[in-house]
Amino acid sequence: MTRILDTIDSPAQLKKLTPAQLTELATELRQEIIETVALRGGHLAPNLGTVELTLALHIAFDTPYDKLVWDIGHQAYPHKLVTGRRDRFRTIKQLGGISGYLRRDESEYDAFGASHASTSISAALGMAAARDLQGKHYKVVAIIGDGALTGGMALEAINNAGAMQKDLIIVLNDNDKSISDNVGALHAYLGKIRADKHYRQLREALGHTLDHMPGGSLAKGVAERSARSAKEFVLPSRSGVIFEELGFTFLGPFDGHDTQQMVDVFRMAGELHGPIMVQVITQKGRGASFAEADPTKFHGPGAYDPVTGEMKKKSGEPPKYQDVFADALVELAERDRTIVGITAAMAEGTSLNKFQKAYPDRYFDVGIAEQHAVTFAAGLACEHMKPVAAIYSTFMQRAFDQVIHDVCVQNLHVVFPMDRAGIVGEDGHTQHGVFDVGFMRMMPNMKVLAPKDENELRHMLYTALCLDGPVALRYPRGNGLGVEMETEFKKLPVGKAELLTPEAEIKHAECAILGFGNMVAPALQAAQELAAEDNICAVAVNARWAKPLDEELILRLARATKTLVTVEDGMAATGFGSAVAELLHARGLHDVRLKVIGLPDTFVEHGTPAILRELYGLTSGHIKDVVRELVRPGTHSGYPVSKPAKGTTKETTR
Amino acid sequence: MTRILDTIDSPAQLKKLTPAQLTELATELRQEIIETVALRGGHLAPNLGTVELTLALHIAFDTPYDKLVWDIGHQAYPHKLVTGRRDRFRTIKQLGGISGYLRRDESEYDAFGASHASTSISAALGMAAARDLQGKHYKVVAIIGDGALTGGMALEAINNAGAMQKDLIIVLNDNDKSISDNVGALHAYLGKIRADKHYRQLREALGHTLDHMPGGSLAKGVAERSARSAKEFVLPSRSGVIFEELGFTFLGPFDGHDTQQMVDVFRMAGELHGPIMVQVITQKGRGASFAEADPTKFHGPGAYDPVTGEMKKKSGEPPKYQDVFADALVELAERDRTIVGITAAMAEGTSLNKFQKAYPDRYFDVGIAEQHAVTFAAGLACEHMKPVAAIYSTFMQRAFDQVIHDVCVQNLHVVFPMDRAGIVGEDGHTQHGVFDVGFMRMMPNMKVLAPKDENELRHMLYTALCLDGPVALRYPRGNGLGVEMETEFKKLPVGKAELLTPEAEIKHAECAILGFGNMVAPALQAAQELAAEDNICAVAVNARWAKPLDEELILRLARATKTLVTVEDGMAATGFGSAVAELLHARGLHDVRLKVIGLPDTFVEHGTPAILRELYGLTSGHIKDVVRELVRPGTHSGYPVSKPAKGTTKETTR
Repeated sequence: MTRILDTIDSPAQLKKLTPAQLTELATELRQEIIETVALRGGHLAPNLGTVELTLALHIAFDTPYDKLVWDIGHQAYPHKLVTGRRDRFRTIKQLGGISGYLRRDESEYDAFGASHASTSISAALGMAAARDLQGKHYKVVAIIGDGALTGGMALEAINNAGAMQKDLIIVLNDNDKSISDNVGALHAYLGKIRADKHYRQLREALGHTLDHMPGGSLAKGVAERSARSAKEFVLPSRSGVIFEELGFTFLGPFDGHDTQQMVDVFRMAGELHGPIMVQVITQKGRGASFAEADPTKFHGPGAYDPVTGEMKKKSGEPPKYQDVFADALVELAERDRTIVGITAAMAEGTSLNKFQKAYPDRYFDVGIAEQHAVTFAAGLACEHMKPVAAIYSTFMQRAFDQVIHDVCVQNLHVVFPMDRAGIVGEDGHTQHGVFDVGFMRMMPNMKVLAPKDENELRHMLYTALCLDGPVALRYPRGNGLGVEMETEFKKLPVGKAELLTPEAEIKHAECAILGFGNMVAPALQAAQELAAEDNICAVAVNARWAKPLDEELILRLARATKTLVTVEDGMAATGFGSAVAELLHARGLHDVRLKVIGLPDTFVEHGTPAILRELYGLTSGHIKDVVRELVRPGTHSGYPVSKPAKGTTKETTR
Repeated sequence: MTRILDTIDSPAQLKKLTPAQLTELATELRQEIIETVALRGGHLAPNLGTVELTLALHIAFDTPYDKLVWDIGHQAYPHKLVTGRRDRFRTIKQLGGISGYLRRDESEYDAFGASHASTSISAALGMAAARDLQGKHYKVVAIIGDGALTGGMALEAINNAGAMQKDLIIVLNDNDKSISDNVGALHAYLGKIRADKHYRQLREALGHTLDHMPGGSLAKGVAERSARSAKEFVLPSRSGVIFEELGFTFLGPFDGHDTQQMVDVFRMAGELHGPIMVQVITQKGRGASFAEADPTKFHGPGAYDPVTGEMKKKSGEPPKYQDVFADALVELAERDRTIVGITAAMAEGTSLNKFQKAYPDRYFDVGIAEQHAVTFAAGLACEHMKPVAAIYSTFMQRAFDQVIHDVCVQNLHVVFPMDRAGIVGEDGHTQHGVFDVGFMRMMPNMKVLAPKDENELRHMLYTALCLDGPVALRYPRGNGLGVEMETEFKKLPVGKAELLTPEAEIKHAECAILGFGNMVAPALQAAQELAAEDNICAVAVNARWAKPLDEELILRLARATKTLVTVEDGMAATGFGSAVAELLHARGLHDVRLKVIGLPDTFVEHGTPAILRELYGLTSGHIKDVVRELVRPGTHSGYPVSKPAKGTTKETTR
């Protein structure tokens, strides 16, 4: 039997479907999403929540002329499926396939790229301003979750939009969740709206008027019928007073799974002027019983059984870095009552929920609010607590100024575990944590370190807590290497690297390979294989610190071998290797060959970490080629240094 | 006659003064501030507005045990004057003198450093959380202006504070202004409170009860007296509903120049539990007729006549960079109607108010909201406008992630004029724009350039607008060099530097000096003087682009001279020189001596730009010393490379 979904090549076709067909289509969309995500993982619960919302938006508005600006974008799978990407949907998040988020270069229906939270209102307001300057008439609709709404930039945008009074619709997709449970006063406030009020029933309020009016004149019709503004019909007495006070017309809450009614509401909102906020209540995980029961677990699951939701067990895998971090923190916090844990809506992702369970009083989830998280930590540090602010590397970008201005300037002791540093894989170009070494090391007082494996992460966390001043500790997404775990914590000396090759070999060495973080393992492997395969003696070093560098060892190796290779899972520009280059010149070692292996000056695509590391040369094979070219020029046949292989990502690069 | 002010060595003494003495002291404080700022400039109007507020806070609370967390800090001169810094007050903003902002290392009364806006609530909440974990009982009071309140991180903090329900007092210093007129819906909302309501009169409401109660039991007394909560006495029916809905108790508005009443209110607030917001209405510039009349002009004036307010005329000075920028933008915008100007509450500082005057429809001041400003610009760029988002270099740090995620990832054409790049002078360590080259050049798709003088700024702005994709254009605070201004705009080739020495001299040169931005002039001077004084042939280059570098020229000079010196007004780590170091190694030029002259790994202090440049080696004299040491080792007697002179900043560094 042909699915309705298979007949939908563009949103225009949705407008021709009957209510019954739309209901059927919603079921098909859910099934397609459940089955696709089941294969290799992805975002599930958010997308099951937005099926009817997506249909209603594309029916009510004239996309892509009207602009839909989705916040974050991990809830936009239904949008992808009805905007011409159905055939490629099963390629989602794979290299060369479609993105798990939104990209302007992927579809004209993606009015604005998305991935980090809270950007949609700002972008939509910019589009509305452009429209009015150009005398155009498209509608602009931002769709933002209640979690993302608490991000500072979304609130800045609301403050600006309320004052500018441009025609702009903000759909508040209120599902009561961020990735995990939502927090904060605004959340509690929205909760009151949810709890105190029934869903608004537009049809009830308007009687049969709606049925006799073309969609485009609802607001006018309402006004004529009753001499009251349309708004009064649907605005409960108290709901939305905050937004009303800030200059918005607030409509809702409405049932976010009632497609027909949402179409009516959105059409009406499109007739009104000024900034409109429409609250729709959706259910994360809707339509999959297992996801409804635990939407946090199924927010972004790995592979699972599409019928039962049973997660594919990965037995015998080494522990995840995030768990090693959290377990160590819990252990250390038992001895030191001044340790507090802070996160910004990443309790599960950082495994800080383990700390929450152990020490609820010392745990703070501030919501999607990285800026506040960092300065809140600074305040705690002023009063002699030891704050550990666990934030993904990519999201630390949001708090760049706070780390400088509130932590480093005052040299406060705040520890920043930066999870998901380096290539994160399928989440792609906006989510890789590849800028952190550069932006952290440029800050005075900051220390930057990265462990070679999960065991060293324990020691580094302990070390960071023993130090003073700010410390940034980066480690990768995913599983450790499976090394033996030591139970005692060791304090590592500041700015001291670990020589992985016997000291006595230095004088014979032709080259030194300095690995940073998870690139230590391939560096060591390369050194060992170069000895075995090419009779090249290369010293391998676990750099440990990108700041302060182990100047003594690096300079000694530079003098001894005249040939250094650095390897890092991050941008080559401004990163660890760049710091080594600066050091060599500052110390006048201008006769040393240095090759920096890191990511080139491009945004890294999505795909499995293994494929991406291969593509971008973060492998022992590539390290060996680089070393061979340096010490035995002309004998290797590998790809060029720090350049991705050609022709692989054309489809998604611009 | 001895001033009362001269008897105040600590805030405890304020508590013993009579109301009449406090009034007299307020007058003395204003006079001291007016006269001090008149000498060399500084922040005036904000400080004249906070005199009574400061007195009331120090009387009502037990500082420094209780924590006053001032936002921004440029309104904290009265606070400095009554907390033991009276004798050093006339050294304010001078090298070795006290800071123009707040610093924990300057006084135990500065509970948290401040300078960038909107940080206070986050820091205060952190302190309150620490207090409760430690079983202490100090009070924490954040003082934030209505302008700073619209910064996203302040709103994030309010969201968190409202939910956490820690005892915390936020004093909303509502003066109706940022640096310039305030904007945004929250501002309009507060305006309604101001306009609709009388000042609350606590004494009126409470009768004579207050006079018979010790300060510590006001709230209890009020409650006993009336069986109503203290709050109900002072909360107007509508004021503060937003904050009430977010979990705050809202008190006010009160007259921010009535010391006695504020003391009573603050004491009462200190008795209440949970987060309290107290709105006080203050007048910027209060007590100086000229500043009252034009508080924007006197927000941060240069030197002026303390009686008349007449600004010291600086006749014959070259135009300011900011004016050259704004005039050029106005001129270009006349030809190109797609150009729009955006700023984040820096209309005067960037001179974008000139653009506002010329093209009000195409001008957007989004308030203190850099994150939103950037993504708003991205939205405009999506719809074929050419947004020019003029933001100080130091404040661009706030939008680091938005520049990456919303602009660079999508390769949108947004131009970022970064005013006040490099050493800004007296505003000191948090305000220098010294990180921008590093954090901008690490972003794929970004271009980074800087003009050698004000004439080239015009061409670079034109060039940036002619290009595609993101462009960051940095230029310094203050006056240009006084060069001749060309009337035609020239499009400069991308990634092409300007050779300032005849091409034919390259083959004779012993060294090439690459200046970036305002360091081109000293680089050229050094080259000329080295020839004259030492018979050293040094090529001088105006680098123009930090990204993309002029690889061809740099590599050619490197091969020809084997000796490069780079000079930049910014952090040496990750900056322009670092990019040159990366280039040399990436291209295998490992036999080239490179010395990077830039700022060392420390926060640069406050002082005049000239003194600071001397101190940190950003002078032709230092460049010459570096070159001599490279090409005639052992012959120079200057200070070491990229290290500040010793013993100069001990007093204020930790």
